[in-house]
Amino acid sequence: MRVLITVGPTREPIDAVRYLSNRSSGRMGAALVTAAQKHGHSVTAIAGPIVVPFPQNIQRIDVETAAEMQRAVLAQFPDHDLLIMAAAVADYRPRQILDGKIPSGDSLTLQLEPTQDIIALAGQSKRSDQRTVAFSLESAGGIERARQKMLRKNVDLMVFNPTSTMHSPTVQAVLLYPDGRSEELGCREKAAFADILLQRAVALF
Amino acid sequence: MRVLITVGPTREPIDAVRYLSNRSSGRMGAALVTAAQKHGHSVTAIAGPIVVPFPQNIQRIDVETAAEMQRAVLAQFPDHDLLIMAAAVADYRPRQILDGKIPSGDSLTLQLEPTQDIIALAGQSKRSDQRTVAFSLESAGGIERARQKMLRKNVDLMVFNPTSTMHSPTVQAVLLYPDGRSEELGCREKAAFADILLQRAVALF
Repeated sequence: MRVLITVGPTREPIDAVRYLSNRSSGRMGAALVTAAQKHGHSVTAIAGPIVVPFPQNIQRIDVETAAEMQRAVLAQFPDHDLLIMAAAVADYRPRQILDGKIPSGDSLTLQLEPTQDIIALAGQSKRSDQRTVAFSLESAGGIERARQKMLRKNVDLMVFNPTSTMHSPTVQAVLLYPDGRSEELGCREKAAFADILLQRAVALF
Repeated sequence: MRVLITVGPTREPIDAVRYLSNRSSGRMGAALVTAAQKHGHSVTAIAGPIVVPFPQNIQRIDVETAAEMQRAVLAQFPDHDLLIMAAAVADYRPRQILDGKIPSGDSLTLQLEPTQDIIALAGQSKRSDQRTVAFSLESAGGIERARQKMLRKNVDLMVFNPTSTMHSPTVQAVLLYPDGRSEELGCREKAAFADILLQRAVALF
C-alpha cells in the first residue's frame, strides 16, 4: 500500500526571526513511518521542522508552514491509498508577516487568522478507494468534539488523544470510527501504538 | 576565567501546546562554549530549547522561557567573571497563558507584552571586576541602534549582526565598544568567529 504520513509541527512566521509553533516533536509521525516500513508499505512523509531522529530511505518532503504542508498533501494524496495526518498543523497564523525584525517595545498585538483545514480539504478530494486517519488533540473531555470533527471532515478513523501526548514518549488514545464504534487503547509507547494504528488503518480497506 | 554563556532561543507559551519562539539554533552559543573550553576557561551554559549538538562536560542549566532564563542568569552571574549573552531571548510573550488548548476558530488576537531585559538587568548588577558581551540582531542598517543598546545596557562589547545570521553556519559581525571603537569581522564560520570573540572578551579585563 502507498501510505502518506504528515509529521511534526508547522511554523508560522511572524517576522524575519520570530514564529508561532507548537510542541509536536515528530515522534508519533516517525513511529508511524517506521511501522509502515516494517509492514512493507511504500511511505511518503511530509515533515515540518522536527527534532527527533527520522527513518531514512523514504521519500521525505520538508515543509515549514501550514500552507506549504497543505500544498504538499494535496499534491501527494492522489498517488497514495492511505493518508495519516499525524502532523500538528498550526491552525492559526499571523495575518501579516512583517518584513525584517519587529523592534522591542512596549506591547504588541498580533492578529491571527485560521489556516486552511488540510484534513477537511483531503476529505473533500478523497476517492472511494482511499482512506484517511487523523488525530484530534484535545483537552480532557473533548471526545465528542473529536467525533464531530471526524464526521465533518470525512475522516475514516480519528485518534482522540489528550494534549499531554505532545512531546511525550507515550500516548493514551481512543480510536473513533464514523459508525460509532470506538476502541480505548490505554497508555502505550508510541512505537507500539503506531503498530496498532497501522493495523486498524489497513483494516479500513 | 569563569564564563557564563546563554544559548539558543526561548519559548513563550500561548496555551498548553502552542508557543512563540525564534529561529535561533543555539549554534553560536555552542561554538562559544567550545571555544571557551578550548581556551581553558570554566564554563556554565544556560540553554533554551536548542536543536544542535552541544558540548558535553560543562555545567548546563536548561530553561524554556525568558523569565526562566532571567532567573538563571541573575543567579549565576555573581559567580562568573564574564557573561556572554548569545541566546536569542524572546522580547515579547503572551500577556496571559491560556489553560488547555485554544480551539480552532475564526480569528484570534494575541496580546503580547515585553519580557524583562536580561542584559540590562545584568548590566545593572555588574561589578567592576565583571564584563558582559551581548549580541544585537538587527535588520541591515541597525548598527546605530546596536550602539545605543550597548550604552544603555552597560555592555562592554556588543556584537552587531544581521538577522540572516540566525540559523546559519556563518556570521558577519561588527564588534562595537563603548569608547566608540569598532571592528568589522567579515563573513566567518561560527567556530572561527567564536574564537575571535572570546579573545576580544578576555582582552576586556
